[in-house]
Amino acid sequence: MTSFKFPLLTIVLSAALFSAACTSTSSVSDASSQVQTPRNIIMVVADGMGPAYTTAYRLYKDNPDTAEIEPTALDEFLVGTARTYPAQISGYVTDSAASATALSTGQKTYNGAIAVDLDKKPLETVLHRAKKLGMKTGVAVTSQIVHATPASYIAHNESRRNYDQIADSFLDDRIGNDLVTDVMLGGGWRYFIRDDRNLVDEFKALGYQYADSYTDLLALPKGKPTLGLFADVGLPKALDDTNRQRLSVMTEAAIAHLENVNGYFLLVEASQVDWAGHANDIASAMGEMQDLEHTMMLLKQYVLANPDTLVVLTADHSTGGLTIGAKGEYRWSPEFIQNMKSSVEAIAKVILEKEDMAIYVSEQFGFELNDEEKNAVSVITSALDQRAREGVLKTILDNRTNTGWTTSGHTGVDVEIYAFGAGADAFEGNLNNTDIAERIFEFLGKAPE
Amino acid sequence: MTSFKFPLLTIVLSAALFSAACTSTSSVSDASSQVQTPRNIIMVVADGMGPAYTTAYRLYKDNPDTAEIEPTALDEFLVGTARTYPAQISGYVTDSAASATALSTGQKTYNGAIAVDLDKKPLETVLHRAKKLGMKTGVAVTSQIVHATPASYIAHNESRRNYDQIADSFLDDRIGNDLVTDVMLGGGWRYFIRDDRNLVDEFKALGYQYADSYTDLLALPKGKPTLGLFADVGLPKALDDTNRQRLSVMTEAAIAHLENVNGYFLLVEASQVDWAGHANDIASAMGEMQDLEHTMMLLKQYVLANPDTLVVLTADHSTGGLTIGAKGEYRWSPEFIQNMKSSVEAIAKVILEKEDMAIYVSEQFGFELNDEEKNAVSVITSALDQRAREGVLKTILDNRTNTGWTTSGHTGVDVEIYAFGAGADAFEGNLNNTDIAERIFEFLGKAPE
Repeated sequence: MTSFKFPLLTIVLSAALFSAACTSTSSVSDASSQVQTPRNIIMVVADGMGPAYTTAYRLYKDNPDTAEIEPTALDEFLVGTARTYPAQISGYVTDSAASATALSTGQKTYNGAIAVDLDKKPLETVLHRAKKLGMKTGVAVTSQIVHATPASYIAHNESRRNYDQIADSFLDDRIGNDLVTDVMLGGGWRYFIRDDRNLVDEFKALGYQYADSYTDLLALPKGKPTLGLFADVGLPKALDDTNRQRLSVMTEAAIAHLENVNGYFLLVEASQVDWAGHANDIASAMGEMQDLEHTMMLLKQYVLANPDTLVVLTADHSTGGLTIGAKGEYRWSPEFIQNMKSSVEAIAKVILEKEDMAIYVSEQFGFELNDEEKNAVSVITSALDQRAREGVLKTILDNRTNTGWTTSGHTGVDVEIYAFGAGADAFEGNLNNTDIAERIFEFLGKAPE
Repeated sequence: MTSFKFPLLTIVLSAALFSAACTSTSSVSDASSQVQTPRNIIMVVADGMGPAYTTAYRLYKDNPDTAEIEPTALDEFLVGTARTYPAQISGYVTDSAASATALSTGQKTYNGAIAVDLDKKPLETVLHRAKKLGMKTGVAVTSQIVHATPASYIAHNESRRNYDQIADSFLDDRIGNDLVTDVMLGGGWRYFIRDDRNLVDEFKALGYQYADSYTDLLALPKGKPTLGLFADVGLPKALDDTNRQRLSVMTEAAIAHLENVNGYFLLVEASQVDWAGHANDIASAMGEMQDLEHTMMLLKQYVLANPDTLVVLTADHSTGGLTIGAKGEYRWSPEFIQNMKSSVEAIAKVILEKEDMAIYVSEQFGFELNDEEKNAVSVITSALDQRAREGVLKTILDNRTNTGWTTSGHTGVDVEIYAFGAGADAFEGNLNNTDIAERIFEFLGKAPE
C-alpha cells in the first residue's frame, strides 16, 4: 500500500516547496511561506500612485554617494500591475470612488459611486464580509475618513460628495448588532461634529474611545473600539505635519486595537499622494511617498512577527500625468526637493509676511535661488492669490527637478501591485483592480447565512 | 529502504508542480512547465514602451461593444517591472544605448555606449555568449540594424552615432571563425552599401543570402545565414508600410533561419515605438504597438509548439512622457486614431498637393474634421515646413484623444517585463535591467575557455 502514500506525501511537501519558491526570496516570504490563507488582511491603497511615483521616489531616496540606486521598501514586494478603468459609462479614466469600489467590492461602477453598482444598489465590501465573519475591521487614512477610498470600504452612497451622509452611515449602519468599523483613524472633524449632529459624542456613547491628537491616540488603551480624528478635513501634508510619518503612527495604533483571535481587516490609505498629484506638487508627492514607505517598513516587520498576515499595496489610478524628465532634457534632479522644510502651500501662505521673500524661499527649499528664480519670487504680491503664489514656487521646483505634468486630474495607466505575507502570490501578474477584491473575498470565504 | 525514496520522488514531483504553479496558468506556461532551462532564447525589446503605452494600447484595441476591456496578447505574460537608469555619470534618465547595453551585457554604462563600459572597454553580450556556445544568433528590428539596441547586442563602440563603424563590425568582428550574427533583418542600406565599402557584397561573398524586400525574404531557403535590409535607414512606419505587421514577418523568417539542434538567441526589437514617442505621435505609437502585439501572438504560438523556448519582452525606457488623459479631463478617446489610413508624417508630406486639404485629412484620419479643426488645417501652406505641418495634425489628434506629452525625449519610469516559456519565472518582480542579462547568462552557462 506504500504506493498510495507517495502522492499524499508529495502533495504536502510540494505545496510547501511551491509557496516557498513562488513568493519572493525575502525573509518575509520565507516566514509566510507555510501560510497560504491569511488570518489578518491589511489592504494598503496609495491614492494616485502611478508607476512614475514609485520610480521617482526611488530616485528621490537615492544615496548619491553610491553607484547603485537603492531599492525602496516597496520594490522587493512587486508582484504585478492592475488595470484601473471604471464601468464603461464613465469612459477609460477612473476617479477614486469607482476604483475604490472596484478594490473593495470587486465590481466596476461609475465615477463618483461609493460601494454601489450602476443601479445605485449597495454592494458588499471585503470589510463588510470580514465583519460578518467575526473579524475586527478598521481604516487608517491621511484624508478625512469619509473620503472616497475609506468610504467605499465602509459605506454605500450614490455620490462621494455626500460627506455628511457618509459620516452618518459610519455610525448608523449595522452588521448584526455591530457598527461596520471598530477602528477609524484620519481627518474629518467637520463631518462628525456638526450643528445638526455630534457623531463623536454618539460614538463615545456606543463605547468607542476617541482621540483628536496623535499623542492622545498613543495614550489610549489597546484593543478597544476607537475613533481618532486629527484634522478638520484631511490631515496636514506630510511635509507640514507635526509627524511626517503620521500614516505609520495611525497604522501601528490601528493594528494594536484590531488584533484578536478572529483576525482583522484593515484598510490603510496614503490618501494625499493623489492630492499632491492634483496640485502638480512634486515635493509634497515625495513627502507622502516617504510616509507610505515608512508604513511599509513597519508592516514588513509586523509580518515577520505575524506570518499569518497578508499585506497588499496598490494604487487606485495615477494622478497629474507625472513624468520623470520633461522638455527634451534627459534629466531628473530630485536633490532640489530633498530638503524641503515645508510644502509650497505652507510657504505661499506666509510668504507675503516675509521681509525678504527670496531668502525665505531659499531657506524653506534648502537651496540658494538663482537670479531668475529671485525675479520670479519678486513678482509675488498680495495681488496674487494663494493658488497663484503656489504656482510661482512649483514652477521653480519643476524647472530645477525637470519634472513633467500633463493634467490636474487622473490618467489611465496601469498601477503596480505589491504583496507580501500569507497568500501574497495570489496577486501576481497583470490583474483587473476588481480581481484584488475577488482574491480577498476568496481568502475570507463565504459569509454565514 | 522505501524511506529514502520519499524525498527523491518528492523532489522530482514537486519540481514539476512548482514550475507549473509558478508560471502563469496559460497553456503556454503549462507547455513549458517541465522545462526550466531554455534551448532557444528570444529577447524582445519594445524601445520606449513605458507603462502608459501598454495600457493605452489595451484601450486602443478595446471592443466598445463589450463592457469588459479585453486584455492584450502581452497582458497574460506580465511578470514584473525593470529599473532603467544608466551609470551614475549619465544621471537618472537613460538613452537607448546605455539601456540596451544593460540588457545585453548586464552592466550599467554611459548614455551613448554600445556594449562598452565606462572605460570604453568591450563587454561580452548575451548574443556573443550564445555564439561561443555554438548556438545560432540573430536580430530582427524595425530600425536600421546598426541602431542602438541591435548594435548593443552585436557590436562594441564608444558611440551609437558611429553607424558605419558599427556596420563594419557586423562583418569584421569574429567569434572563433564565425561572424557574430547569423541572421540580420531590418533597415539600413546606406550603412551597408557605401561609396567606401559594399558590405552587402562582402556578406554575400561570405555565404550570406541577401533580401531587400519582405517578398524576397519569404522566398529565401530556410536555415541559412541571412542578411535582409528593407529600407535605407529605419523601416517605414507601421501605419505606412506595405505590411503593417512587418516585425512579425521578420521574426518568423528569422526563427526559420535560426532553428537548429544547438538552439539560438534572437533579439527582436519594436524599434519605432520610441520614434513615435519622440515625435509625440500617438497614432504611430499605437501602430507600432499593434505590430508588436502581432509578433507576441506569433511567439506565443511558437512556444506552444516549442516549449523549450524562452520569450522575454521588456522596454529600455519610456519616451515622450505619454499620459492617458490630459488637461484636467478624465477622458481618453482612442476611437479617433483607430482608423488612420496613414501616419501624420505621410499625410503632411503630400497635403500641399491636395485640392481640399481638410477633406483629405478627414479621409486619412477616418473622421470628419469639425470647423475648428478645418480652420487649423487651412493655415497649412508651403510656408510651414514638414515638421510644422505634422504639428498641426498631431495637435488635432492629441485634442481629440486627450493625449498628454511632456517631452521630445525619454523619461525615467520603470518599464514592464513580460515572459513566457522555459524559465519565464526567473524574471518575476521588480528587477534592475541588468538582472535580465544576468538571468540569460545564467541560462546560457559558462563559455568554453
